Amino acid sequence: MERNYVTVDVTIGKLLDEKKYKTLKDILSTMNAYDIAVLLEDMHDSKIQLLFRMLPKELAADVFVEMDEDTQQFLIKGFSDSELKDVVDELSADDAVDIIEEMPANVVKRILRQADPETRKQINDLLKYPDDCAGSIMTTEFVSLRPNMTVEEAIKRIRRTGVDKETIYTCYVVGNDSRLIGITTIKALLLAEEDEIIESLMETNVISVGTLDDQELVAQTISNYDFLAVPVVDTEGRLVGIVTVDDAVDVMVEETTEDIQKMAAIATTDKPYNKVGVFETTWHRIPWLLLLMISSTFTGIIISSFEDKLAASIVLTAFIPMLMGTGGNAGSQSSVTIIRSLSLEEIEFKDILWVIFKESRVSIICGIILGVVNFGKMLLVDGWMLQNPSITPTIALVVSLTLVITIIVAKIIGCSLPMIAKKFKLDPAVMASPFITTVVDVVSLLVYFWIATEILGI
Amino acid sequence: MERNYVTVDVTIGKLLDEKKYKTLKDILSTMNAYDIAVLLEDMHDSKIQLLFRMLPKELAADVFVEMDEDTQQFLIKGFSDSELKDVVDELSADDAVDIIEEMPANVVKRILRQADPETRKQINDLLKYPDDCAGSIMTTEFVSLRPNMTVEEAIKRIRRTGVDKETIYTCYVVGNDSRLIGITTIKALLLAEEDEIIESLMETNVISVGTLDDQELVAQTISNYDFLAVPVVDTEGRLVGIVTVDDAVDVMVEETTEDIQKMAAIATTDKPYNKVGVFETTWHRIPWLLLLMISSTFTGIIISSFEDKLAASIVLTAFIPMLMGTGGNAGSQSSVTIIRSLSLEEIEFKDILWVIFKESRVSIICGIILGVVNFGKMLLVDGWMLQNPSITPTIALVVSLTLVITIIVAKIIGCSLPMIAKKFKLDPAVMASPFITTVVDVVSLLVYFWIATEILGI
Repeated sequence: MERNYVTVDVTIGKLLDEKKYKTLKDILSTMNAYDIAVLLEDMHDSKIQLLFRMLPKELAADVFVEMDEDTQQFLIKGFSDSELKDVVDELSADDAVDIIEEMPANVVKRILRQADPETRKQINDLLKYPDDCAGSIMTTEFVSLRPNMTVEEAIKRIRRTGVDKETIYTCYVVGNDSRLIGITTIKALLLAEEDEIIESLMETNVISVGTLDDQELVAQTISNYDFLAVPVVDTEGRLVGIVTVDDAVDVMVEETTEDIQKMAAIATTDKPYNKVGVFETTWHRIPWLLLLMISSTFTGIIISSFEDKLAASIVLTAFIPMLMGTGGNAGSQSSVTIIRSLSLEEIEFKDILWVIFKESRVSIICGIILGVVNFGKMLLVDGWMLQNPSITPTIALVVSLTLVITIIVAKIIGCSLPMIAKKFKLDPAVMASPFITTVVDVVSLLVYFWIATEILGI
Repeated sequence: MERNYVTVDVTIGKLLDEKKYKTLKDILSTMNAYDIAVLLEDMHDSKIQLLFRMLPKELAADVFVEMDEDTQQFLIKGFSDSELKDVVDELSADDAVDIIEEMPANVVKRILRQADPETRKQINDLLKYPDDCAGSIMTTEFVSLRPNMTVEEAIKRIRRTGVDKETIYTCYVVGNDSRLIGITTIKALLLAEEDEIIESLMETNVISVGTLDDQELVAQTISNYDFLAVPVVDTEGRLVGIVTVDDAVDVMVEETTEDIQKMAAIATTDKPYNKVGVFETTWHRIPWLLLLMISSTFTGIIISSFEDKLAASIVLTAFIPMLMGTGGNAGSQSSVTIIRSLSLEEIEFKDILWVIFKESRVSIICGIILGVVNFGKMLLVDGWMLQNPSITPTIALVVSLTLVITIIVAKIIGCSLPMIAKKFKLDPAVMASPFITTVVDVVSLLVYFWIATEILGI
């Protein structure tokens, strides 16, 4: 696939240089919107507009939707009002809203001015819903049927009105009061007798989402039930739109990227890495780095207050990084597992005791194994092979005991913090590795010095 | 949605106790396969079989597919041969293969013995493909049309054969040699004139994947092009199957979970957290923990070899955790961003120099800001407020300078290791936080002691 694309890339570049516009038009009109968008984004600015203008109207709108916002904005700037109108007219309302949400106010005004009154109304209706909820990602273009229609009438209706609909595969049956009373599929219609009544073949146990439901829930619903689209109803049960599976996939990718960013202590963004400038990237990373750096003042204070004891047994210092590193890793194994499990809805807050019990057992086994290995390693490698006379069995015992306790504490903190965050409607992903590592660092140092004081009597 | 489900749960429990089987049957037959699967998984073993036997045949198979493998295996054990046959007959070949791949050999034999010869052949064909490739997740049940058919004939054919097909919404046009020559949709067919010829309305620029292509590429293709299904062709270009969007969604969820697990240094599994036992969980976590613990021997050796210098200026010890923590966080911000970006195909190996250049600039700004803040903080908080006389401006300078260099090194290592891994066909996700932290720890300690030696002259 990739090879094909590179060849096309070169071909189009050459044809442009040779000004073979007719051939270019023919090639572009056979291509897929996504491929053209990728191709144009990598082109020089002046060529983008030239090529975009060669596209047939409908394809042009599809390509426009697939482009990143910088290229979209660049194109809009160069558009005449009638060119802009051509693109906007072909956009579905939900795509238009997606684009508008990322544009500066003056561009939004220009787009809305060019839209026909009905589209403008639809766009404005969708814009009312808060970001990231079902209402803001749904489309209002769906096929609706009446319960008393025959299959023949239904298929005729779809033939007549289907062209502009986002999907015709799932059809929604609504009553007089616009309430959603059933769904059916074009497959069911085609396989049924022509004189059958819709009411008799529709599915009445309809799964739907509310306009204000989180987009993550919408995507999860589509994924769980293997739907092609899910209906969106208002608080009265009236059908106001549908969310299709392709938009659900986009939501899933976006939400996962955000989760991963939060886990790595980065401010979230849905822009691709190669489209974010150096200053913006820095801005996304600095706050957490600063916060975590300053919070490690605590570890500094703990070490300072044990300075005299450390000076008496300086060999203890050598194992601080290993203890903290292993504690951090053990904690983040648990926290990341729990965060993912929460977001896949495999577990929820009410399972917290069960989770803690499970993690405790896992951590005791992990702790003991690592403790024993570490004890042996210190005596064998550090003491005997590297001939460090400070490594006595007592020192190895202090370090290994601390290791066991650190791992147990780290895993219990690591599994409980994300769940508690969820309970308080905070995002569990924020409680991931970096945050937990900082907490675990403090605990493991305190344990270390306490055990050292007890056993070594320093 | 969740509230509904809980009520149903209680209702069904009560009806079971009261042995109202007729009512139960009626309720279950109105429910969605996924909901029934979730419901049954949480039930007591004896009730699972009782309820499952109440389901109509087709629904029973759908529910079976949605269940986790433990419940599936439990049910199969209790099935008579004829019950097993009923379920297997209703499974689509790709679902059957998914199930078979997770089952022990004796169960697989029982399943294959019950399948009718044609299904068994399909299953065996699919089982030949390696795990995780397009061939292993595709279904062989698709609608194929001939280029010389009229629209009317095509719709008739779909009406006649569509019942057993996984999707009828995309139709595949194949030539005499089984080569895929075009695609069309049921939407296009319905909106076209009845006497139009398929060849004239089909899309000939077909995007397809190969049988041996990675399932991640398949999912990415479906997501990029907003497809409902993608055709799978063999090396000769013959159409052998299709992968539908619902399976692509499952692949995306599975692959993302694996990436996240690798980033957290856990062996990958596609079992949900609540279905993995304590020992298995431990087994997934121990190897990386051990490896990382042992590799931190290096940090121990470095500290030990600077023991005398540390004893002379013990205050330096207090800042080791902060330096390592910040270095680790800075590095994992970069590595995680790059890993995600690679997996979304926003960047590739050839961009490595550009990425390093960008990360260098980001890291220099981050480093300088954190260095300055740390210098101020050490003098103000540690020195003045906490009245630690050891904190001199020179010590603060040593720590802050090390911090700047650590952040720069961490970010450059963090961004380049995943890209280099990709180049060598290793999984970039393995190069995430824990691994990079270990590398950065060593570098930051060496820098620390080198700067301390130079500036403090110890």
